[in-house]
Amino acid sequence: MNGWKIVGGVLGGSVILAVGLLIGHFGISKETQPTWAKQLSKDVDEGFIQEFMREVDKESIGRYLRRLTQKPHMATTPADEDLVTVILSHWNDLKSGLDEAKEVRYDVFLSFPDKKNPNNVKVVTPEGTKKFECKHAEDHLTGDQNDTDIVQPYLAFAPNGTAKGKLVYANEGKLSDFQHLAAKMINLTGTIAIVRYGGTGRVAKAINAAKFGVIGVLIYSDPKDINDGKVNPNETYPNSWYMPPSGVERGSFKENFGDQLTPYYPAKEFTYRIKESEIKGLSPIPAQPIGFEDAKVLICNLQGSPAVDSWQGSLGCVYNIGPGFQENSEFNSSDVEINVYNKRTIRSSANVIGIIRGAVEPDRYVLYGNHRDSWVHGAIDPSSGTAVMMEITKILGTKLKEGKWRPRRSIIFGSWGAEEFGLIGSTEFAEEYYNKLKERTVAYINVDISVFANASLRAQGTPPAQNVIFAASKQVTTPLDSSLTVYENWKKHSNRTSPQYGLIPEMGTLGSGSDYAPFLHYLGITCMDLAYTYDKGVTKARMYPNYHTAFDTFDYASRFIDPGFTSHQMVARTAGNVLLRLADSLIVPLGVRDYMETLDRYYSKAEENFQSNLNTKNISLIPLRNAINRYKKACDTLEETIKNLKKTEETPLKIRMINDQLMLLERSFINHMAFPDKLYYSHVIWASRSSSVVTFPGLADAYEKAVLSDSQDDWNQVHHHLTVAITAVESAATTLERVTDL
Amino acid sequence: MNGWKIVGGVLGGSVILAVGLLIGHFGISKETQPTWAKQLSKDVDEGFIQEFMREVDKESIGRYLRRLTQKPHMATTPADEDLVTVILSHWNDLKSGLDEAKEVRYDVFLSFPDKKNPNNVKVVTPEGTKKFECKHAEDHLTGDQNDTDIVQPYLAFAPNGTAKGKLVYANEGKLSDFQHLAAKMINLTGTIAIVRYGGTGRVAKAINAAKFGVIGVLIYSDPKDINDGKVNPNETYPNSWYMPPSGVERGSFKENFGDQLTPYYPAKEFTYRIKESEIKGLSPIPAQPIGFEDAKVLICNLQGSPAVDSWQGSLGCVYNIGPGFQENSEFNSSDVEINVYNKRTIRSSANVIGIIRGAVEPDRYVLYGNHRDSWVHGAIDPSSGTAVMMEITKILGTKLKEGKWRPRRSIIFGSWGAEEFGLIGSTEFAEEYYNKLKERTVAYINVDISVFANASLRAQGTPPAQNVIFAASKQVTTPLDSSLTVYENWKKHSNRTSPQYGLIPEMGTLGSGSDYAPFLHYLGITCMDLAYTYDKGVTKARMYPNYHTAFDTFDYASRFIDPGFTSHQMVARTAGNVLLRLADSLIVPLGVRDYMETLDRYYSKAEENFQSNLNTKNISLIPLRNAINRYKKACDTLEETIKNLKKTEETPLKIRMINDQLMLLERSFINHMAFPDKLYYSHVIWASRSSSVVTFPGLADAYEKAVLSDSQDDWNQVHHHLTVAITAVESAATTLERVTDL
Repeated sequence: MNGWKIVGGVLGGSVILAVGLLIGHFGISKETQPTWAKQLSKDVDEGFIQEFMREVDKESIGRYLRRLTQKPHMATTPADEDLVTVILSHWNDLKSGLDEAKEVRYDVFLSFPDKKNPNNVKVVTPEGTKKFECKHAEDHLTGDQNDTDIVQPYLAFAPNGTAKGKLVYANEGKLSDFQHLAAKMINLTGTIAIVRYGGTGRVAKAINAAKFGVIGVLIYSDPKDINDGKVNPNETYPNSWYMPPSGVERGSFKENFGDQLTPYYPAKEFTYRIKESEIKGLSPIPAQPIGFEDAKVLICNLQGSPAVDSWQGSLGCVYNIGPGFQENSEFNSSDVEINVYNKRTIRSSANVIGIIRGAVEPDRYVLYGNHRDSWVHGAIDPSSGTAVMMEITKILGTKLKEGKWRPRRSIIFGSWGAEEFGLIGSTEFAEEYYNKLKERTVAYINVDISVFANASLRAQGTPPAQNVIFAASKQVTTPLDSSLTVYENWKKHSNRTSPQYGLIPEMGTLGSGSDYAPFLHYLGITCMDLAYTYDKGVTKARMYPNYHTAFDTFDYASRFIDPGFTSHQMVARTAGNVLLRLADSLIVPLGVRDYMETLDRYYSKAEENFQSNLNTKNISLIPLRNAINRYKKACDTLEETIKNLKKTEETPLKIRMINDQLMLLERSFINHMAFPDKLYYSHVIWASRSSSVVTFPGLADAYEKAVLSDSQDDWNQVHHHLTVAITAVESAATTLERVTDL
Repeated sequence: MNGWKIVGGVLGGSVILAVGLLIGHFGISKETQPTWAKQLSKDVDEGFIQEFMREVDKESIGRYLRRLTQKPHMATTPADEDLVTVILSHWNDLKSGLDEAKEVRYDVFLSFPDKKNPNNVKVVTPEGTKKFECKHAEDHLTGDQNDTDIVQPYLAFAPNGTAKGKLVYANEGKLSDFQHLAAKMINLTGTIAIVRYGGTGRVAKAINAAKFGVIGVLIYSDPKDINDGKVNPNETYPNSWYMPPSGVERGSFKENFGDQLTPYYPAKEFTYRIKESEIKGLSPIPAQPIGFEDAKVLICNLQGSPAVDSWQGSLGCVYNIGPGFQENSEFNSSDVEINVYNKRTIRSSANVIGIIRGAVEPDRYVLYGNHRDSWVHGAIDPSSGTAVMMEITKILGTKLKEGKWRPRRSIIFGSWGAEEFGLIGSTEFAEEYYNKLKERTVAYINVDISVFANASLRAQGTPPAQNVIFAASKQVTTPLDSSLTVYENWKKHSNRTSPQYGLIPEMGTLGSGSDYAPFLHYLGITCMDLAYTYDKGVTKARMYPNYHTAFDTFDYASRFIDPGFTSHQMVARTAGNVLLRLADSLIVPLGVRDYMETLDRYYSKAEENFQSNLNTKNISLIPLRNAINRYKKACDTLEETIKNLKKTEETPLKIRMINDQLMLLERSFINHMAFPDKLYYSHVIWASRSSSVVTFPGLADAYEKAVLSDSQDDWNQVHHHLTVAITAVESAATTLERVTDL
């Protein structure tokens, strides 16, 4: 080779190389997104969700449940504090823990019976001789009931005092029940009422009773309502899932949730506390719960006319209404005496908060919570939910620590304290972080009792939650038939025909029965509550029978409620799936259009029930109809925007903009001025309602009042509440409309 | 060449080309950010701000002002509607308009005098003979006062009626003024009080008066307060900027802002309206404003003892307190009779909304607004501000239409209706878009009266606004000395020593005097109000003298207030600069640490004034101190995060996260439960306050009440309001702390 050739070759090669360089650099389209941009536009990883679900281990859930239910762990007791330590240590575990875990304490107002001076219920003759006394404790049927830490059955916050008088039977203690008795010319003044659980809230029974002069209340669970009629020991726990004759449902006896002395403010040391006398919604009269074997002794000896059929129960006798006992009974002219010695006290209660920081949007939260405190061992309520939460956090924590996963958004787990005393831990948390949570929370998932029974998923939530719950439940299969999904099984058990989707599982609505209440009603966060439940065709029990009794134990849970923990496993898979979708989806999977069905239904109900009277008062429903139509149009626009998104190519701020619209939709229904007399209730769609008409609660209740009084002021309030409803729906539309539509 | 060589050469070339391709593609670092990523991380363009400021044209502002002041344009009158059209057409202009402009209407409750039945004030003898009557209109001093559309001087919402009685002079009509008279054993029952403007709010004078039995009120501007003592026609307009003897300040006569019939709800057709009798904060007695030449006739004829020195004014006589006229005067035993025939009515009032959509963050808003309605021609109030706004929108609109600029965030301009009747247009807008604005607004800039006088910038705002106002005012120079910035000039006129910055211009605080009020007090948006103002060393006038009179004309503005419109120009440059910084800065230029000085000052005042008494009541200020320290620490953390940001390299969502913390800080001081009796006031730092102690208003007022009554309930309220303050500061800290700190 001569020199020129080499030079020529080098030159030629250089030119070609240069051409290559140029083409390579400019001609071949490089991935146009930098690393961070890719991460920003990453969508939920379906493979990871499958992996998570595979790893949900029913034996592990069983082990958690066993640990959580070792001791009765009523709020603020040593056993409750022990569980604080247990949960903290799991969430801080180096190999399977979260990014951070801590306890947050509040000084909360609680109420306990006096161990030395137990509440009691007696039958006493006019001469003062005790003829009978109700049991102070449930029977020892398994080893569990021997625990000296089991709290005597009682009603927390029921006032102290002695009440003695003739016994009357007042069915479920509804207002209508007492009206029924009064209509029969029964003089209720000075009487003691015995009522069954069900039909109305616990404390409402005593508040209603007191209005008629009743001075004390006894509450029991009728076997008809709780046991499908079963009453005998051989038919009840420990021989079946039914409540034994000595079983007593404990419970909180007050209307409002949250710490009673610090409404709207976190119960910190510095916080101003109202006076006990200023607390609203407490019972004015003493009350005590008793078992149905004791209730039977009392009710079956009542004199007076027989109660109407619908009042009769399964105690094995005709229920007379009283007042007083039959003359030919051993009790004849005796009274019933109730002595209540509950002590109200301020105690330090802990929430345990566990945090996984989001990789992309740390300032967007998905909350997942359950309470920790129980009345006794609380295997089902709440430990079935806590065990599920622990299993989920263990799997996710492990992935996190292994560096295999970090959610797009932050996940906040809450183990709430003192729920049984009225959702206290969750409410104080919502109060303390009001702004931060309200501005940033995508959704709250509550799994309290995770398994009531083995038959079907039961989900409650606000409409936007339906979409993600459906998506998750379609991916979980039932244990006996791997071709049957939780979704399909749910649809078989409980369904409705949706105008847009046809036949779908029926999602329930949320009241204020668990820790979602402050997040929904006060903060306006999209909430849901998930559990497995029973087949209403098989049992008519109004609750799982040993709810709030000393028989809600690990033995009960593992032998009768969920042998093998397969339902726990399905709930963990479903709830975890929901959690991951909310935390990891590029577009938040909330179905805002699903509010349309609620709004349409509310409108129809209002039209059907109110319109003719409203017309005569010159109050028009048309602006409400217009607002709902505007909401529908806003959904169309937003859906169109989402449909046209080239998801992973869109700018992260555009994705965020849309996600904020989806997240904030629920917030737009909040109006802190709407219900000045209802503590915390600010959600115009879901606030509490007395009227039976299922429509906007403020409108329904105002209408009911106006029809009764026919006063102009009350009709003005109807118009006012119609305005509240219209502006809430318009605000919702505004949230979904283009961000620059102002 | 043989075939192999060719093949070899091709092969060799191919390999080299491939190497080149590979190196070119992978080896040469390409710009790692895609186009959209670059745009997302773009910071404010200082060159563009300079260009904007250069283009602000004083002649153009003058032309806008002339157009805006052609006719008296009281809210909802044809001339107001004409201006709606004018502004709309400018904002919709194809070459210099905004992206969008529209009118948004509300049906609002207003009050006007009756043209056919003018309000009147007379002196009448016991026999009913009229001895004197105050003027019904201002003198015709320039052509402008000939306009038949000039509204008679009146007080909007002052109730109709006739009041006749002996005249008393009650200074400024403060509560203490009437107490002073009562202490002198003056029987005020059935009297008419004449009071000067100043010292307290307009309607407060009548509300105070009525408490002492006064049945009618006259209000006038004393030359001492408004004219530096000048009273003669040759010393007053049209010969100077001072108020002529016939000038009368009109005004709204009510305590609360917003539409009075629809509190908290937009005044739409469908909105429920409360009854007039349910409106709070109106005057219970008729009232009418008069000119000081008429006031002189009344006051200088009063009998009784001379008023104390501080009550004396500049009418040229000794002010006696009455009651009644001097016996040796022509009025001797005469009464003063007031007849008010105002008509309350619902009228359609328009806001004009102009929108520039943000390029990067369309869902973050910077609001800029001013009202459009005036009492008469309103050259200064509000057209000086509107002219500035029109100049700003013209320049920005032109840049927009030329494709040279689009802001990062959306800019919303508001030309508010019916401000003079109580900030109605802005309040209804804030109510209608409550959620959308609260969730997304970075700041609200208000420029109402843009030029009171030519001496110095005057800025009011919440602390976070100080930073951006300082930055802008340092870039604007004064017309007479190009080395003197607006900032330095401001500092010369009004300054304070800041613990952190040393000597700085003094920014004022915001009350509820203009359209920022609903945004600040109800929504918790960082607000500011900008204007040029007078030198307090040169004039003691409590307002620019022709405020709300028929002399506030283009002639007045252009000859006396701002000849050459140079102050208008400086305000336009400053406000526009602020606007651009807020809209375009990558990191929102709000100084959250500046709240520390307010909190520290509030704490010191509380400690100094309340601590010893609080100690005796076992109420500790320490938790408040702790909360403020926590706030300070949160500022440190956030500032550290911002300092360490590699601004343009950070992910857009991290930038957004920080910006949201800055934006939402002000929101964390909002507590809708804090002041249930104060309409709209929800800002725990800036709510209205009666106490003279400059600290947390709820705490100060509760303390004042408790000290007076010394009742336990009132002390409990002190503790309650201390809790309100602590939780607000803690919530503020929470907002600035790490987003995952929960």
